[in-house]
Amino acid sequence: MRFNFQPISNVLGVLMIIFGMSILLCGGVALYYGGNDSEPIIKAGLLTFFFGVLLLTYKFRSSAQINKKEGYLIVALAWLFMGFFGALPYYISGVTPLFADAVFESVSGLTTTGASIFSDIEALPNGILLWRSLSQWIGGMGIVVLTIALFPLLGIGGIELFVAESPGPTADKLHPRIKETAKRLWLLYFGITVVLIILLWLEGMSLFDSINHAFATISTGGFSTKNTSVAFYDSAAIHYTIAVFMLISGTNFTVLYYGYKRYFKKMWYNDEFRYYLYFIITTTFIITSLVHYLHPGDLEKNFRDTLFQFASIVSTTGFITYDYTTWGNGITMIFFLLLFSGACAGSTAGGIKIIRHTVFVKNTFLEFRRILHPRAIIRLKINKEIVPPRILTHILVFLLVYLLVIVLGSLIMMFLGIDMPTSLSMVATTLGNVGPGIGLVGPPYNFGNFPDLAKWTCSFLMIIGRLELFTILILFSRSFWRTN
Amino acid sequence: MRFNFQPISNVLGVLMIIFGMSILLCGGVALYYGGNDSEPIIKAGLLTFFFGVLLLTYKFRSSAQINKKEGYLIVALAWLFMGFFGALPYYISGVTPLFADAVFESVSGLTTTGASIFSDIEALPNGILLWRSLSQWIGGMGIVVLTIALFPLLGIGGIELFVAESPGPTADKLHPRIKETAKRLWLLYFGITVVLIILLWLEGMSLFDSINHAFATISTGGFSTKNTSVAFYDSAAIHYTIAVFMLISGTNFTVLYYGYKRYFKKMWYNDEFRYYLYFIITTTFIITSLVHYLHPGDLEKNFRDTLFQFASIVSTTGFITYDYTTWGNGITMIFFLLLFSGACAGSTAGGIKIIRHTVFVKNTFLEFRRILHPRAIIRLKINKEIVPPRILTHILVFLLVYLLVIVLGSLIMMFLGIDMPTSLSMVATTLGNVGPGIGLVGPPYNFGNFPDLAKWTCSFLMIIGRLELFTILILFSRSFWRTN
Repeated sequence: MRFNFQPISNVLGVLMIIFGMSILLCGGVALYYGGNDSEPIIKAGLLTFFFGVLLLTYKFRSSAQINKKEGYLIVALAWLFMGFFGALPYYISGVTPLFADAVFESVSGLTTTGASIFSDIEALPNGILLWRSLSQWIGGMGIVVLTIALFPLLGIGGIELFVAESPGPTADKLHPRIKETAKRLWLLYFGITVVLIILLWLEGMSLFDSINHAFATISTGGFSTKNTSVAFYDSAAIHYTIAVFMLISGTNFTVLYYGYKRYFKKMWYNDEFRYYLYFIITTTFIITSLVHYLHPGDLEKNFRDTLFQFASIVSTTGFITYDYTTWGNGITMIFFLLLFSGACAGSTAGGIKIIRHTVFVKNTFLEFRRILHPRAIIRLKINKEIVPPRILTHILVFLLVYLLVIVLGSLIMMFLGIDMPTSLSMVATTLGNVGPGIGLVGPPYNFGNFPDLAKWTCSFLMIIGRLELFTILILFSRSFWRTN
Repeated sequence: MRFNFQPISNVLGVLMIIFGMSILLCGGVALYYGGNDSEPIIKAGLLTFFFGVLLLTYKFRSSAQINKKEGYLIVALAWLFMGFFGALPYYISGVTPLFADAVFESVSGLTTTGASIFSDIEALPNGILLWRSLSQWIGGMGIVVLTIALFPLLGIGGIELFVAESPGPTADKLHPRIKETAKRLWLLYFGITVVLIILLWLEGMSLFDSINHAFATISTGGFSTKNTSVAFYDSAAIHYTIAVFMLISGTNFTVLYYGYKRYFKKMWYNDEFRYYLYFIITTTFIITSLVHYLHPGDLEKNFRDTLFQFASIVSTTGFITYDYTTWGNGITMIFFLLLFSGACAGSTAGGIKIIRHTVFVKNTFLEFRRILHPRAIIRLKINKEIVPPRILTHILVFLLVYLLVIVLGSLIMMFLGIDMPTSLSMVATTLGNVGPGIGLVGPPYNFGNFPDLAKWTCSFLMIIGRLELFTILILFSRSFWRTN
């Protein structure tokens, strides 16, 4: 254990200062609305800010090098610190008296999960509401930068080839320098958010609600300011707009950047993006057909609800316009399985993601050929490039470890006396950063009434899911702490 | 598609003649007991016998070579034919009027699953009871020979290295020639069965029941002649005896042969066998502690029931002495997860098997090291030999495909209106060839009341699970039917 704590502390210090300022911003908005939440939020913001200053003053040195292991520590500690300090506005303002609840809500926001412990959201003051939404927006931005700029360097998730583009001529890369990449992504993220705010406002939402829902949509978070989520708005335009923007936010931001630059051919040559489109079209068609066959009625409404709920779950947002668990056992099972889908790597979406499913499915077909021709060397190709065996193995391991975490998490829930469908889906929905599940975490319910241990477990699951499992799990391995 | 149908037909012909004779044997026993099932069973046996003769007379040629693809076809057709003709005794005798039920019971026997569609087993005549047990015993023997002698040649399951022993000096192999290997395994299988029959008889079971339960134990089938399964016998000796023999039957028969030859060091050096023992000891201890903590009472009884049910599920037998679903949500979940365990490769047990779990777990720890040291070549070792990457990938793919089949199977069940815990566990228990599950397929229930489509699906799952997935799934791949 020979960690260089100075750069770790410095990076985290800067981060917490920015984070504290974000909390203070919500405190300002609370002041504007004159709610009694302004003082507690400002207190929380100042605490965070000064914690950042404290970290920063710890033996400052400007050009310290950060190695790989320190990279993991920074990422893990960043999310832990943000989860803790992000909980202070809820806790200090007293909107929830339980610290486990405050941390759950904070982590749920930052990880863009969107599962809530509040049953009456409309009773919350505006400052708190904005903080819920803003924490998602910060978390979503953070994860895009992490997955596109940092994870490839750390070798996390095995999708380095697909998020950072295939290793070819440099011109093919979004931009070689991390800082420049991060800046462009930030502008794109900010731009899409502004467009959505304007659209929702034009479609009849209040400006405050437009901002909140746009934050929750672009980050694929899913916190709403309404008790009934997006179902509150009886407007087809709003439903379709949010559905489309959830799907856009589930797209690799590098691919979105190509779209913005009108490099449409390049978009189309991205295997994951193409399969994502196929998946959206075929699955929406199948589910709409099933829904309409089982529950005949207004076809447009059935299609809209299906599209919205499909987009909401696959993009791991979690907004609700219709309770899909009322569509029967079979369709409920489909939505349960969609919790395992996830959208594209390098987007704000959580979960397993299309690229890993693609690798699994394509490789399985190759496996049949490998059995029949044991001497032939049959390699998997993605984006027209051979996937190195190392990365193939890593992705298969990721999938299995993901399922193992689901199993162990559910075991804890079931020992707490929770039924099996609820246990499985609450673990799947938190690990996948989705939000709603089935059973007692289905669309009409919230996470408020579960035992504390269940909430802490879910908070942990949200973080390890958000950070592609290995970033956190590796901290529990012996190899990590061994010197050399 | 250039298959050589003559050798396929000949092999299947010989098999069906032997299979027909086995049915006739049960017909003879039915005659002895004077039941009215003798005539139908004899009819079924003769039909099977003459079907075999018909296959055999199809252009007989003695020394035709069998290639790999024909090998798959023979194995698949053998189990399909046996499933169909093995159903005739049930169907012709009228103990079940539904053909789907008859096939389910037959396939359940042959695949050594032991899930039944009968609610009143004690009402069945003796000939039918014996056929249920004998079909398991035949199936169990068949699978040991297949996995140890044939699957390694076909490259099925990726466990060729572990069942056929590591590729070292020839002295290390059980015996190089398949015929000789098969003969020794058969004698061992026969010997253990006789020992168990005698033990059960001495412990107070009737001779008929001893034979039936021994057949069901050694094959890890699990059909009992009693409605309450082994719980019918209020004898600790019988419970412990069957528990131990279930665990023995879950052991690689090559390892058992070492034991018989007193090569104890060789047994101990087999990684899978050692982990199997650790797994039995630790898990039994943990579950017993939990059971005794949650349901204090007679410690010996709690330990005995736990050991029996653990041995029953892990060995994929499925006998019952206690309904584990009454031990609460948490322990029910543990037993649900044990449906995915399976015992050792090269035994009569079905399921995923310890060796594949070992490969997964060991490789995952190595994966952490691979992430931290991306340039190092870090290889997995089993039985002190490096596992070739090809086999590692194959096993990871197997695990994922196994879970995918569970998911797709459960989706069918849920669309048939079955609840989620029942759906998941009925698919897991049939694919794993175990027998009981949780929910409406828990220990007190049977498979009789489900829709026909559910039964056909389960029959299919039992066969693909029994044949290590790929033997059957490969028949659905394009590569298999492509000429070249």
